[in-house]
Amino acid sequence: MEQLQYQEGRTEIGQLGKVALIDRLTDEFKTKNKSTVTGVGDDAAVLGTGASKTLVTTQTLVEGVHFDMMYTPLKHLGYKALAVAISNIAAMNGQPRQALVSVAMSNRYSVEAMEELYAGLRLCCERYDVDLVGGETTTSRAGLVITVTVVGQVDKEKLAYRSGAGLHDLIFVSGDLGSAYCGLLILEREKVTYQANPNFQPDLEGFDYVLERFLKPEPRMDIVKLLAEKEVVPTAMTDVSKGLADSLLHLCKASGCGCEVYEEHLPIDYQTARVCSEMSKNMLPVSCALNGGEDYELLFTVNQRDYDKIKDLKEVHIIGHITEQGMPAVMVTPQNTTIELRAQGFQGVRE
Amino acid sequence: MEQLQYQEGRTEIGQLGKVALIDRLTDEFKTKNKSTVTGVGDDAAVLGTGASKTLVTTQTLVEGVHFDMMYTPLKHLGYKALAVAISNIAAMNGQPRQALVSVAMSNRYSVEAMEELYAGLRLCCERYDVDLVGGETTTSRAGLVITVTVVGQVDKEKLAYRSGAGLHDLIFVSGDLGSAYCGLLILEREKVTYQANPNFQPDLEGFDYVLERFLKPEPRMDIVKLLAEKEVVPTAMTDVSKGLADSLLHLCKASGCGCEVYEEHLPIDYQTARVCSEMSKNMLPVSCALNGGEDYELLFTVNQRDYDKIKDLKEVHIIGHITEQGMPAVMVTPQNTTIELRAQGFQGVRE
Repeated sequence: MEQLQYQEGRTEIGQLGKVALIDRLTDEFKTKNKSTVTGVGDDAAVLGTGASKTLVTTQTLVEGVHFDMMYTPLKHLGYKALAVAISNIAAMNGQPRQALVSVAMSNRYSVEAMEELYAGLRLCCERYDVDLVGGETTTSRAGLVITVTVVGQVDKEKLAYRSGAGLHDLIFVSGDLGSAYCGLLILEREKVTYQANPNFQPDLEGFDYVLERFLKPEPRMDIVKLLAEKEVVPTAMTDVSKGLADSLLHLCKASGCGCEVYEEHLPIDYQTARVCSEMSKNMLPVSCALNGGEDYELLFTVNQRDYDKIKDLKEVHIIGHITEQGMPAVMVTPQNTTIELRAQGFQGVRE
Repeated sequence: MEQLQYQEGRTEIGQLGKVALIDRLTDEFKTKNKSTVTGVGDDAAVLGTGASKTLVTTQTLVEGVHFDMMYTPLKHLGYKALAVAISNIAAMNGQPRQALVSVAMSNRYSVEAMEELYAGLRLCCERYDVDLVGGETTTSRAGLVITVTVVGQVDKEKLAYRSGAGLHDLIFVSGDLGSAYCGLLILEREKVTYQANPNFQPDLEGFDYVLERFLKPEPRMDIVKLLAEKEVVPTAMTDVSKGLADSLLHLCKASGCGCEVYEEHLPIDYQTARVCSEMSKNMLPVSCALNGGEDYELLFTVNQRDYDKIKDLKEVHIIGHITEQGMPAVMVTPQNTTIELRAQGFQGVRE
């Protein structure tokens, strides 16, 4: 019988890293269907031969990796599982239309638990006009794994890839950054205290905003709508799921350019700053913004001629500009020091 | 903190069953997008407003439930994960075009192991002209979970739902039935022997066909092609993934009809009969055909006027006919006894 383990020439996934792994695994796949416009490597695949393109994306959340049942209400989890997949459609400047949901769960989960999960999914479906059209429930040996596929639609001329940023384009980001990660930090802190003393009543008061940011993120479909209203098509776009640094690096790599963003322009909520100061003196809000994750904001670039159309929108913030090919992605501090960005992004609770 | 377990009013998934569960969970979802043609309840969702419809389906395989790493080569597993999703597209009379693959794996799996899995996926992509366009790899706490989404295409007038069978339509099935289940039985038998004595050399000789049927099934895209060549559009179609009885019951329920199939017409390979006789005197090949699973053959109905066009095809077999609404789904034995079919289908290795 063939055994699983390869003792010889074994390379740990961690040695290679997730991005390099998927590059290596998919390197030899060639696309040949004329309906395949773009495949692996952006927030969603782009399909179809007409002027209206179909977008497809899939996103998996794993118990103990992306969520902890200790502090994740199942209704929130269902909502979030769909929300983060919709965010990938938003990141292409598209509209979500349909979803397929596959749930693998151990026998620890009851019918009532599944109903909670699906209540959250339904809420998100209703909020974002998404139709549930398929999927399955299946058994797992341990824990809960949810995979959501979302199908979306976008007109060809509105499509925003990661790869379209041009020299001197302006870099915008929606909402604020780092708050979801701070929500996670609070939940993890209270969990540790609770585990040490089960009579302890967790104190989550005053943290509503950061907790909601982590437990129940909203895909920024409102930004997609605003951009359409202002008749602005981003030259490039992606969502911020693993920290701003990671998203900027992906966008710059895909577009073949560098960038400069300004620390003092990064949008950071006061609650994020408060959590950081409570946690540790060494913890800087800007680190949460750059390397925290799960914000699901939109990062996009626009041509300078579009600046006036969106400069007054309170929902988006200009944070920098694109520099030429060969230049690094950097952040400029208020002291005018230049720091090269690296991807240290967290990838879920424990990943 | 909200805790997971619902002690009060807890209903086990097993009490309800998987099909009733998904019905209950999806019952309150309403579809509202005009591009949603049909949602939950067939082999694939049907999307799009034009004459060319987009099909989308998703399928999850879980380690320890749908496959056992003890006897599943990873290359075969990658191939099978895609093949079974393509089978859902075949079951709608469509063509597969693109796939997205999400893999959650524990740190037991190395880069080389993932390369094996993807080599199998690539082989299946190449064989069925499917483009890999997305997906991700992520960490799991334990084991391997693969979710494959396949996007397909079908012209509106060729679409075959489960629900179109009409009175007196003829029932056909492709290939043979029960052999994949017999492959599983052999693998499980050898595993038990091996676990009792690790020096034991498993004896798989002479079982090539049934083993391949289980480990590396082929979606019947050749049947879709043959039907097109013969200009036959099935009135209803589904694939046989959980045994013939389960598929017949689904087709009859969706079509609002009964059916009669004839035991002596069920296509059963001689190797299936051989495995049954080796396993136990009480094990009947017809039980494997009705209630074994994972054959991934196509079950379809055609109008009587199309009979002549396909009656001589060696790849498909007429097994019965559709009866009127209110009649049960039954099998007629060679002794002319009528047995009502029930779904006892297995749902993977241990599910």
